[in-house]
Amino acid sequence: MSVGIGDDAAVAEVLRGHQLLLTTDLSIAGVHFFPSFHPPRTVGHRALARSLSDIAAMGGVPRFALVSLVVSRSTTRAWVSAFFAGLTSLARRFNVKVVGGDTALVHGGSVVDVVVVGEIPRGGAVLRSGARPGDWIFVSGRLGLSALGLRLLKTRGVSPSRGPASRALRAHLYPEPRCALGLFLSKNRLASALIDVSDGLSTDLSHLCEASGVGARLRADRVPGPGPVPTGSDRRSRAAGRTSFEKPDDLFDLALHGGEDYELLFTVPEAKASRIPRQYRGIPLHHIGKITSSGKMVLIGRNGVERTLKPGGYDHFRNG
Amino acid sequence: MSVGIGDDAAVAEVLRGHQLLLTTDLSIAGVHFFPSFHPPRTVGHRALARSLSDIAAMGGVPRFALVSLVVSRSTTRAWVSAFFAGLTSLARRFNVKVVGGDTALVHGGSVVDVVVVGEIPRGGAVLRSGARPGDWIFVSGRLGLSALGLRLLKTRGVSPSRGPASRALRAHLYPEPRCALGLFLSKNRLASALIDVSDGLSTDLSHLCEASGVGARLRADRVPGPGPVPTGSDRRSRAAGRTSFEKPDDLFDLALHGGEDYELLFTVPEAKASRIPRQYRGIPLHHIGKITSSGKMVLIGRNGVERTLKPGGYDHFRNG
Repeated sequence: MSVGIGDDAAVAEVLRGHQLLLTTDLSIAGVHFFPSFHPPRTVGHRALARSLSDIAAMGGVPRFALVSLVVSRSTTRAWVSAFFAGLTSLARRFNVKVVGGDTALVHGGSVVDVVVVGEIPRGGAVLRSGARPGDWIFVSGRLGLSALGLRLLKTRGVSPSRGPASRALRAHLYPEPRCALGLFLSKNRLASALIDVSDGLSTDLSHLCEASGVGARLRADRVPGPGPVPTGSDRRSRAAGRTSFEKPDDLFDLALHGGEDYELLFTVPEAKASRIPRQYRGIPLHHIGKITSSGKMVLIGRNGVERTLKPGGYDHFRNG
Repeated sequence: MSVGIGDDAAVAEVLRGHQLLLTTDLSIAGVHFFPSFHPPRTVGHRALARSLSDIAAMGGVPRFALVSLVVSRSTTRAWVSAFFAGLTSLARRFNVKVVGGDTALVHGGSVVDVVVVGEIPRGGAVLRSGARPGDWIFVSGRLGLSALGLRLLKTRGVSPSRGPASRALRAHLYPEPRCALGLFLSKNRLASALIDVSDGLSTDLSHLCEASGVGARLRADRVPGPGPVPTGSDRRSRAAGRTSFEKPDDLFDLALHGGEDYELLFTVPEAKASRIPRQYRGIPLHHIGKITSSGKMVLIGRNGVERTLKPGGYDHFRNG
């Protein structure tokens, strides 16, 4: 028996021998999304993607979602419909059942809270705290794409449908949680530590290092940036001239510190490193550095010069 | 292994052979609480109590909570501390572990979202839809106390510490979810249908009747009202004169339609009705009427006159 929305609580079930994974993420108008340039469909998609990515970052399988939506009195029915369409379309693709939620009207701005319940075989969760000196550091996909997409969205709107700009926009508007990769790493017991890149590589690597009591050495030439520089070929950006983010250094900053890529950052004991494929289901996996016992993060530049790396991504205000 | 706040998701476990119960409830400043007269400790208590009551209304045991808190930039640290103190104190008393959450600052008003995960032996959940004609209708405790407490709070503040007024204030500010009673009903398979009285007796009985495809006959003389009329003995209320809610008819209206009592409303097949005790762990259980096949709700007055009963409690705007 399984009961969805409508009774006092939803009834659900996880597989025998499995543990629950529980995560919740707020998405707030003016903080996490901007109604003036984020289409409602993308607000729904991104709100759920954040929580799915947390389940991926434990190596688990997402199963159920609860969606609470607080909307301003001026919000249209069309906005709410498109929001849920974006959210449920992503949920369907990940076999996640939306089993409950709550809604309310307020005078202020919109607030979304998405809870995802996942499952993982007992003892199989991959924590942030398992990295050991000598472990190799890997990251999936490309970094900085979402931050670049956000900048393009602010300056040019959602128009570009082709080329590098559209890839960045897509990464920002429709991020793809890496659940299959997380599951591959946990099932095969390959990763010693695992986290998703939600606040930016430098910040999330610092979270992993802190939790594990270790340091890290990253090689700048191995960090996968957002890729080819957008050419600014549309009329508005030509009129505005080249914008600052199109400089290579600035793109590298986005790769280091830009948030919301939802790629997976993980460490692998050296003895198992050869078992990490170059790509998994089309997603490139990059070996970007090594875990050290030093307690700090070091970035080795293309010129061989070493610099201390600080968490430079955006870290939300957190309780406790 | 169990991991709390700090990793990407919390790891938790429910008992073997059990199903999950999942519920989420929003508490919004200006809708569900008023910062001008609800002390922060009570905001935390009430936000969790709403979700615990949903688990009680399925006959389950609450286990884990996730708390998301969106506060205005003008909110003090003292407010946030008192909010969490009220919430965690109730959580401890019910053996509920707060395993996660999220926090954010906004320009608008505060929003709280509490998710509670409970457990129930497989197939043991008591739904709203199981009531059958002939079943007896029971309700626990007293009704209308919370609504009366809210009125007192608005007119007199939190001052009264003794007497009937303090009982109403306490019911409003520190409602007690009926988890032990819900578990007693589900374990002994006594209730055919079960719901909590969060929106008011008339509204929640209509939810139960609709879900079960039945009607109900209630006896006005059996409905437990908020009890002795507050005497208005403090200086401010003496100056203001007797207020309207002190008339007996008005008190009965609060019992029928006032929300947030979080008592349990349940139906029991006639053959099992004698197994319902007069009180359970100090909470009186009242036989207030019978389920019928008529499809409508009827109230039999003290004078024997029958009236159609309509849902008159406050029903939140709900999606779908």
